[in-house]
Amino acid sequence: MFQSFAVTARPEQGPPRLADLRTELARDGLDGFLVPRADVHQGEYVAPRDERLAWLTGFTGSAGFCVVLADKAGVFIDGRYRTQVKAQVAADYTPVPWPEVSLAAWLTEQLPQGGRVGFDPWLHSAGQIAKTQTDLEGRDITLVRSDNLVDRVWWDQPDPPMNPVKLHPIEFAGESADSKIARLAQSLQDTGCGAAVITLPDSIMWLLNIRGSDIGYNPVAHGFAILHADGRVDLFMAHQKLNVAMADSVTVHAPDTFLTAVAALDGKVQVDLGTLPQAVADVLEGQMVDGGDPCALPKACKNPAEIAGSAEAHLRDAVAVIETLCWLDAQAAGDVTETQVVTRLEENRRKDNALQDISFDTIAGTGPNGAIMHYRVTEETDSLLQDGHILVLDSGGQYLDGTTDITRTIAIGNVGEEEKACFTRVLKGMIAMSMLRWPAGLAGRDIESVARIPLWAAGQDFNHGVGHGVGAYLSVHEGPQRLSKASHEPLLPGMILSNEPGYYREGAFGIRIENLLVVQSAPTLPSGDAERPMLEWRTLTYVPIDRRLVLTDMLTAVERDWLNAYHREVAEKVRPRLGDDAQLWLDAATAPI
Amino acid sequence: MFQSFAVTARPEQGPPRLADLRTELARDGLDGFLVPRADVHQGEYVAPRDERLAWLTGFTGSAGFCVVLADKAGVFIDGRYRTQVKAQVAADYTPVPWPEVSLAAWLTEQLPQGGRVGFDPWLHSAGQIAKTQTDLEGRDITLVRSDNLVDRVWWDQPDPPMNPVKLHPIEFAGESADSKIARLAQSLQDTGCGAAVITLPDSIMWLLNIRGSDIGYNPVAHGFAILHADGRVDLFMAHQKLNVAMADSVTVHAPDTFLTAVAALDGKVQVDLGTLPQAVADVLEGQMVDGGDPCALPKACKNPAEIAGSAEAHLRDAVAVIETLCWLDAQAAGDVTETQVVTRLEENRRKDNALQDISFDTIAGTGPNGAIMHYRVTEETDSLLQDGHILVLDSGGQYLDGTTDITRTIAIGNVGEEEKACFTRVLKGMIAMSMLRWPAGLAGRDIESVARIPLWAAGQDFNHGVGHGVGAYLSVHEGPQRLSKASHEPLLPGMILSNEPGYYREGAFGIRIENLLVVQSAPTLPSGDAERPMLEWRTLTYVPIDRRLVLTDMLTAVERDWLNAYHREVAEKVRPRLGDDAQLWLDAATAPI
Repeated sequence: MFQSFAVTARPEQGPPRLADLRTELARDGLDGFLVPRADVHQGEYVAPRDERLAWLTGFTGSAGFCVVLADKAGVFIDGRYRTQVKAQVAADYTPVPWPEVSLAAWLTEQLPQGGRVGFDPWLHSAGQIAKTQTDLEGRDITLVRSDNLVDRVWWDQPDPPMNPVKLHPIEFAGESADSKIARLAQSLQDTGCGAAVITLPDSIMWLLNIRGSDIGYNPVAHGFAILHADGRVDLFMAHQKLNVAMADSVTVHAPDTFLTAVAALDGKVQVDLGTLPQAVADVLEGQMVDGGDPCALPKACKNPAEIAGSAEAHLRDAVAVIETLCWLDAQAAGDVTETQVVTRLEENRRKDNALQDISFDTIAGTGPNGAIMHYRVTEETDSLLQDGHILVLDSGGQYLDGTTDITRTIAIGNVGEEEKACFTRVLKGMIAMSMLRWPAGLAGRDIESVARIPLWAAGQDFNHGVGHGVGAYLSVHEGPQRLSKASHEPLLPGMILSNEPGYYREGAFGIRIENLLVVQSAPTLPSGDAERPMLEWRTLTYVPIDRRLVLTDMLTAVERDWLNAYHREVAEKVRPRLGDDAQLWLDAATAPI
Repeated sequence: MFQSFAVTARPEQGPPRLADLRTELARDGLDGFLVPRADVHQGEYVAPRDERLAWLTGFTGSAGFCVVLADKAGVFIDGRYRTQVKAQVAADYTPVPWPEVSLAAWLTEQLPQGGRVGFDPWLHSAGQIAKTQTDLEGRDITLVRSDNLVDRVWWDQPDPPMNPVKLHPIEFAGESADSKIARLAQSLQDTGCGAAVITLPDSIMWLLNIRGSDIGYNPVAHGFAILHADGRVDLFMAHQKLNVAMADSVTVHAPDTFLTAVAALDGKVQVDLGTLPQAVADVLEGQMVDGGDPCALPKACKNPAEIAGSAEAHLRDAVAVIETLCWLDAQAAGDVTETQVVTRLEENRRKDNALQDISFDTIAGTGPNGAIMHYRVTEETDSLLQDGHILVLDSGGQYLDGTTDITRTIAIGNVGEEEKACFTRVLKGMIAMSMLRWPAGLAGRDIESVARIPLWAAGQDFNHGVGHGVGAYLSVHEGPQRLSKASHEPLLPGMILSNEPGYYREGAFGIRIENLLVVQSAPTLPSGDAERPMLEWRTLTYVPIDRRLVLTDMLTAVERDWLNAYHREVAEKVRPRLGDDAQLWLDAATAPI
């Protein structure tokens, strides 16, 4: 299944559905109802049956929620989606800038005293509900648990996904499920918890060394798990998905027995309040210890087999990207469209038998489209790559041995000096981060400015983080590690992150350069302080950076050396895997500057 | 009064005082008593009568506390003072590493169930007490308000300081006290508070445009104030200090009426729980709004007159430093001691009539002494500046028009290449911070790594923040602005901060280079994003950086240009103010590299 370029925004479908929902509101005596983007697993992607927000409003962004009142329907969206929401929703919906306007503030403004707002306790985390209730303190508005009113009126709601689960082989997982279960169970014993409730699908996949395909782009199967301190795991997942031999310590149960099993737990139970559904919190109450998902950190710190698999997946992925860039360079400016690039790239990736899916919708934005950070090309927006454009190409693959995510910015014909100057600044920041060595213990927030300083010096910056965590044949956006001002999580050896500074000039052009990197212990230096362990990056991504966009005079000698050495490594590692044309193309693309 | 080099540690005085205190413990039926370093104003410096911790234990550091039990006396000290405390306290005292060991954890370990620990509610902030009580939850140990038992047994305790207050002239203050009072009163009205309680002396000095000399190094007078939302100020300060005409809106009261006046306040009262004495919180209880000290942020953002005054004070201060460095260079290696440098520097500063005091004890650490970050030279430690040493010289002055703080690291004779390489890395970091331009809204934590990257690359780092806030003829350590991983306070135009990266090799040498900088709006650049206001630094400190310690090959062209341009400015601004010898010395010291 190739990436779809269909226009999914159907604003005209919203109003009749809204009317149906309001009938249910009135029937239940509610003044409002919350419709989140999230499903019960609080992830970035949801199954078609969980696309309640898009079904109701038309808005297809990856975050946000709608609050339906009798006479108003607010669509709360963050800064990334301010433009998109206007094109996707009908006039009956009111976009609300969020988090600038909080849910509590908006409800207070819109509702009379005594207002009652319903929510589905499975679709909101306990943390979200607690925060909103705190915000609402002293205001006479109540959140009340409710049936899901969207599900009541969505007569042709798709069924839940029921795709088969596969075992993730030990050669890629690097540690048996039994071993993972045993060490996590030990950590529960150490903290005095009898069990942990796990509701994040990628955590369950990691823990049990399985993979699924219930949602797009992420190789996960929906389910829940309870990890007991005695080393048993109860997995709540439809039996029809599970035609594989699970570890001995795992017992499979029907999903609808999950809540009863949670309610039967004794003693303290470790949960992640940030993602635990309120419905589950309701049956645990005083037993909960907010210790986070016990899989999150062990999963983030990849073992040698996972790192080796990711590195190998990146080299095969590089072949697909390089063959695409080679083809693109052979086309005349003005002859190719964004969707043609996307399709060609996906075709090249699919030549690899290990590819299971792309890891997200490819972003291919040429000229002004490149300035839209989360641009998804559709039949309507599809644009020709024209002379003087620069193309932002951000894509990735899900391979059995690893997950990739790479962005390159490509010159189309003769590009202006201004674009090149901005590109070179982004490159300088990307190089500075790649070369960084830092004291163990620092978090993303402590080092992410390194990638911005060259842009700052020119009065420029970009409105996204420098990087996100990436899984090992799991989510392409994985926590808790991040290169972001919001991240206080110390970086640890084995964590994979993206390094992707950018620059965006609205209506003109966009730039982003992205490699994936692994944190590793830095070797001791003769000058180094003995008592100060340091960390550094190992690069996973090996694809040329477009030399035609580099203003060499703006680079320091050290930066130029880095770029030339990187290109030498690209040639060494990837050239033997390429076809003849691509080999010649690579020779030029990796020549020293 | 010149800086004292007396050895103040008298460990043998501690035990008999401890015995006296334990008699009082028993008399009051307490199991323990807390003796903090802080006085009622929670500042860095205290008056002699408030040196309770030093009197009892011998420990003279600027932070810490003692917990006296019947059979043990723990001295809680942070990482800076681990070595010092061992030399200063008798064996009857047990150093406790803090905050690694919390007060609550230590009390739980040492005391039987039902233990009662007394504290003087004037000497601990409400925030500290609340935190300790939270930490003690579930443990059967109680904090109880108590007389100050140290004051009971300290028979020759000095009197409180009673030094006269002076008006701070409008030419330096830049804004009348009436204007400050009016705008702060307005902000109280805006937040619905009827009054604010102010217990920090530098806040009161700033608000009322007065200065005092009740403690060393900081030009403040002890007192309290209540700012009313209607624009009146009640000042609680001994009448004998106040032979000046205060603003019309200010009414002076005897200090011992302060608590009664606070108790009589109606409505909500803004306080800073982090510094408000528990004794004051006790009479306010439910009325308190923890909005911080209302003077803190307005005081931190200096107005044009304060910035101009600080800049001028720095130029005169530069004369004193340069004359000292010129003299030092004329001495043979091995002929001069640390105390001689300190005394000479203070003599040179005192030639300026505007100097009121030095702004802290000068740190002059040569060779291995330079590696002790907070080194205070005494008669016992006084060392010769020997060939091959580098000298860390960190000092400052309190002038009527501004507060200075400068560190230079100076070559003594022939210095090794290793020292020079480390010095050059520190310099590269210091230059990177000086040149930084950054988007408005960032805090110290977001940018402080900029000054560390060159050290990190060599496996090196330093264990202090990059910089601290500095007042305008006020505290040399001023909040809330800081260049530190701990600081989330956005940097704003007018804030003065130090930029002082360093490097310390225990037993060998130390390095620190420090300029004071002011935050200012950065001019728009042609390349700059229109919607993105940026900030930059303006340098206040103009004293040469020792070129003999710079390995020019390690600098980039941009760094070399910065250093040469800085030295050109030093020459332009300071040379005309120097004597003949110093002019010749300056010409060599500021020659291009």
